[in-house]
Parts: sequence; structure tokens; C-alpha cells
Amino acid sequence: MNVEKPGLEVCLSPALLHLYDTRGAIVVIIDVFRATSTITAALHNGAKCVIPVASVSECIAIGESISNSITAGERDGKIAEGLQHGNSPLEFPADFINGKTLVLTTTNGTRLLHMVKDASEIVIGSFLNLDVLCGYLLLQHKKVILGCASWKDRFNLEDTLFAGAVINQLQHAFEINCDSARAAKHLYVSSGGSNFIEFLKDSSHYRRLSAFGLEYDMAYCVTPNLHPVVPFLKGREIITA
Amino acid sequence: MNVEKPGLEVCLSPALLHLYDTRGAIVVIIDVFRATSTITAALHNGAKCVIPVASVSECIAIGESISNSITAGERDGKIAEGLQHGNSPLEFPADFINGKTLVLTTTNGTRLLHMVKDASEIVIGSFLNLDVLCGYLLLQHKKVILGCASWKDRFNLEDTLFAGAVINQLQHAFEINCDSARAAKHLYVSSGGSNFIEFLKDSSHYRRLSAFGLEYDMAYCVTPNLHPVVPFLKGREIITA
Repeated sequence: MNVEKPGLEVCLSPALLHLYDTRGAIVVIIDVFRATSTITAALHNGAKCVIPVASVSECIAIGESISNSITAGERDGKIAEGLQHGNSPLEFPADFINGKTLVLTTTNGTRLLHMVKDASEIVIGSFLNLDVLCGYLLLQHKKVILGCASWKDRFNLEDTLFAGAVINQLQHAFEINCDSARAAKHLYVSSGGSNFIEFLKDSSHYRRLSAFGLEYDMAYCVTPNLHPVVPFLKGREIITA
Repeated sequence: MNVEKPGLEVCLSPALLHLYDTRGAIVVIIDVFRATSTITAALHNGAKCVIPVASVSECIAIGESISNSITAGERDGKIAEGLQHGNSPLEFPADFINGKTLVLTTTNGTRLLHMVKDASEIVIGSFLNLDVLCGYLLLQHKKVILGCASWKDRFNLEDTLFAGAVINQLQHAFEINCDSARAAKHLYVSSGGSNFIEFLKDSSHYRRLSAFGLEYDMAYCVTPNLHPVVPFLKGREIITA
């Protein structure tokens, strides 16, 4: 049986999303530092769901309307005024987040997620759920678009490296004719394929977050497979199966 | 004497140009396959100037208004209807182009060039003028933005590799805090730093152009330093000093 392989592409920035045909595709939202890492960790630790929102005021309003909810989000490396928690995956261990709704405001990851309008499915990707995400994508036989949230529309290394890690696992099963995908895979493979944090130490985002003392947070975010769930968007909520 | 280093950034697509502050900067237009390679070759071979234009009709009109001019440009790998020559650097040897004005229509490279409005200077980059371009940029002590023409706004490998080759020469003299620049340099260095054509054989543009039998053309375009001039934009013309 010779089944046609579905396509796989990488979108390096939300500002390039219009170049991609997301209809019928599974779009993977990638915001390694730290939105999609935090969403993955919170859901694996038992959160009922995560509601991603763009603004602090929306976060507060939705938080007030849902019982047993937590509001979280940072601006400039600090918990945003009026919210209860920050944007670290380490802030949401099972004994705290289990059964609760996490209302999370982030800038880059949330924005990309809300920009994708007509996909077959929107799922959440991070190193924390790398293998299980790849396994899921393999089984669907659908076109995949790996969407890097980037930083204020600027290409970033950590999201691109993660896209490369996914491609490294999936390339045999997908048709890839996309230079962004080739570059992402080459960056992943040639950076050693494991010690990301060393490679990322010179990146813009690492430098920005390490100025806030978040080195441990970032090392956690690039550790593969700590939280093996596949979060997906359903209505306004991100949940797991 | 501790002189502050000027900044260097890489813009991976014209669709991201708005993220960069080009005021006072030298912007290097990069369209390796093949606009900036052809411009560099034609000028080194004695062309009086190159006039880059967006459309075939404009190319014909300007060609008719200038004596001793040549019109050139391709659409879908063939000489565009109404023009005299294609878009290959090999079509403009010295005994043909010397003293003539080349009116050239291309899609990606021309578009980016016309999008940059407020730069200190717009110069032309290709592997054909790599070292002399780097030497020129070193001497100016100005902020540099390496602008990849890409392919219909999509990231491409060949322009990014060239940006990496420039950064590899200039990084000691510039302040670089730009993940695109880091990725470009890493792609260049880890791809061996010389045998680009092997690395590029799987790229989208190589596959597209090789379907038109242009393999030799592309091998020529990635050969460093065959045409050591630094073309720059003056008014509507690209010239050399």
C-alpha cells in the first residue's frame, strides 16, 4: 500500500502565518519559554483546563467568573498586577493545581493561538511533551503546521529548536518541502540534539529571562518528556483527552 | 580606546522588515538565487548600472527610454515575454554587458529593495561579492541589517546561509543580539562553511530551479568572490563606486 504522506511545515513567526494554509491541518502552538511549557505541566499535574487570554484584565474577569480558578501571568518578568501567579511551569505542582482551572495570560503564545482560525485542530507543543506529541501527530495522518510563537513576531531559537526536534522524529512519515523545516531540523541535529540549554544560553530570550533569575525555569522547560500529555484547544479551553 | 560596536541583525523575510529599525543602517539586500548574484556579476563585468524594477511592463518601458540598455527578467524559469534576457549571472559576460544599462525585473529581491525606505545605504550582497562586502561593512562602523529576500516572503535557506557567511566574518566587530543572526551563523558554520551546494540540494529553491535545468547557474551563484564589487543603490540605479 502506497499511502501519500501528509505535509509538514514550520511557521517561524505569527507574522508569517498568512503564508500557510491551515485549513484541515493540525497546528502545533510552540512557546517554549514559557507559555506552552506551563500549559503542558499544569494539565499533566491535573488542572481541569487552561484558559489562555490575551490581557490581564480579561484574565481577572474570567478568573472571577469561574469557581476554583487560578489567575496567572507575567509582564516584564514579574507577576502581573491583579493576578495570583506567574508564568512558570514550576508554580503549578499537582497538589496545588489538581482540579482547578488555570486562567493564563501570555503575550506571544496566546496571540498565535488566537490567530489560527480554520485549523482542524490546535494542539500544544513543548519539550515537556515532545515524544507523546510526536506519537499523536504520527497517528493522525493529517497535514501538520508547527507554529512558533516567537518573541513579538521575531524568530527565536528555542521554538525553532523544538520544531526541529519534532521534525527529527516525524520526517520519515511526512512530506517536507519547507526551508524553515529544513533549517529547524538542521539546527536541532547539529546543536547536539540534547544539550539545548547550552546552545540556548546565548539566545535573546535566555538572556532576557536569566536577568530575572529564571535559569532553572528554562532548564526545566527544555527537559524532554516530563509531562507526557497532548493538550488541545476546545472552544476557549485547553484540555487533555 | 573602547569604541561601542554597531549592531548587526538579520531579517529573514520581507514580511518581517517592519520589526527592524532601518534608520541610519546599512541594509544588505540578499537574493542569492538569483537577483543579487546577477546584479553583482553584471556590474563587475562592466555594466554602467542596473535598474531593478518590479514588473515586466515597467522593465520594457524603462528599457525603451534608455539607449544602450538591455531588458532582462524571468517568470517561472523562462525569459519573460517582451524581454531580451533571463535572470542568470552567466548571461552578462563583460564582452556583452560592458557599458550597458541592465534593466532587470525580479520578484523577491526587487520587492525587498523597494520596501526599504529610510536606510543610510542599501547595498547588494551575494556569495559572488562576499569578502569585499564584508570588508566594506567593517569599515563603515554603522549598524547593519542583512535582509533576506526569501521566496514570496517565505524563509529560504540560501539567503540565510549567506547571512551566516557574513556574520562569520563580522561577528568580532559587531554587537549581535538577534536569534535570526545566531541561527544563520550556526547554519553556515555547521553546514561545513564551504560546500553550500550540497547543503542546498534539498532546499525548495534548488528543487524549483533545477527543474528548469539551472544547476550550473546555482553552483555559480554560491561560489565566493568571483565578482568583488560592492553595488549600492543611488536613486533608482544600482551602481558601484
